[in-house]
Amino acid sequence: MFIAINYITCKPDYTAKFEQLFAKRAHAIDEMPGFIRMHVLRPKEEGEDYLIMSFWEDESDFKSWTKSNAFIEGHQRGFEDIKKARKAGLEPPMKSTFKTYEVFAN
Amino acid sequence: MFIAINYITCKPDYTAKFEQLFAKRAHAIDEMPGFIRMHVLRPKEEGEDYLIMSFWEDESDFKSWTKSNAFIEGHQRGFEDIKKARKAGLEPPMKSTFKTYEVFAN
Repeated sequence: MFIAINYITCKPDYTAKFEQLFAKRAHAIDEMPGFIRMHVLRPKEEGEDYLIMSFWEDESDFKSWTKSNAFIEGHQRGFEDIKKARKAGLEPPMKSTFKTYEVFAN
Repeated sequence: MFIAINYITCKPDYTAKFEQLFAKRAHAIDEMPGFIRMHVLRPKEEGEDYLIMSFWEDESDFKSWTKSNAFIEGHQRGFEDIKKARKAGLEPPMKSTFKTYEVFAN
């Protein structure tokens, strides 16, 4: 099983908006071949990163998702807020670090 | 759903031993009330942390596990290697950072 994790460092005044983005997500990812499940994790300790985790049969299934139109459309709302901040010369409301993993034991 | 993640920074010459610890794990955790599942993640990129993730109905279920005899027994082999290194005045073969999360979207 392949797991992709996006570690999101969210500015304190953006966490509510960030959580809203997922409350209203399109669920297009759920229909992708090889998709197993997805979890979005809120840190128990303030100031820690949020984690967006998706589980896939295989890395190639995940790559197909990132190249799909649904992926690009689904990320537009979040990307727009980052673009707006950049245009205004402000620090972006969130930063992400992307890492990938293979499950080797359960 | 409550998720506990232990981020393990493993010295390069200890990764094989670390992975073995899980290949032979006792599976006592699987019988704990509120336990949902567990995954141990190997980073795709060398030098990144391993992740030991366990999924629980509730934080209290996880806490009961950490107080159980099975938890203490199950961690002995790994802890021993750390103790040995300390006694020998060497850097421990692995370091862990523990974080907890709540799933707020799927």
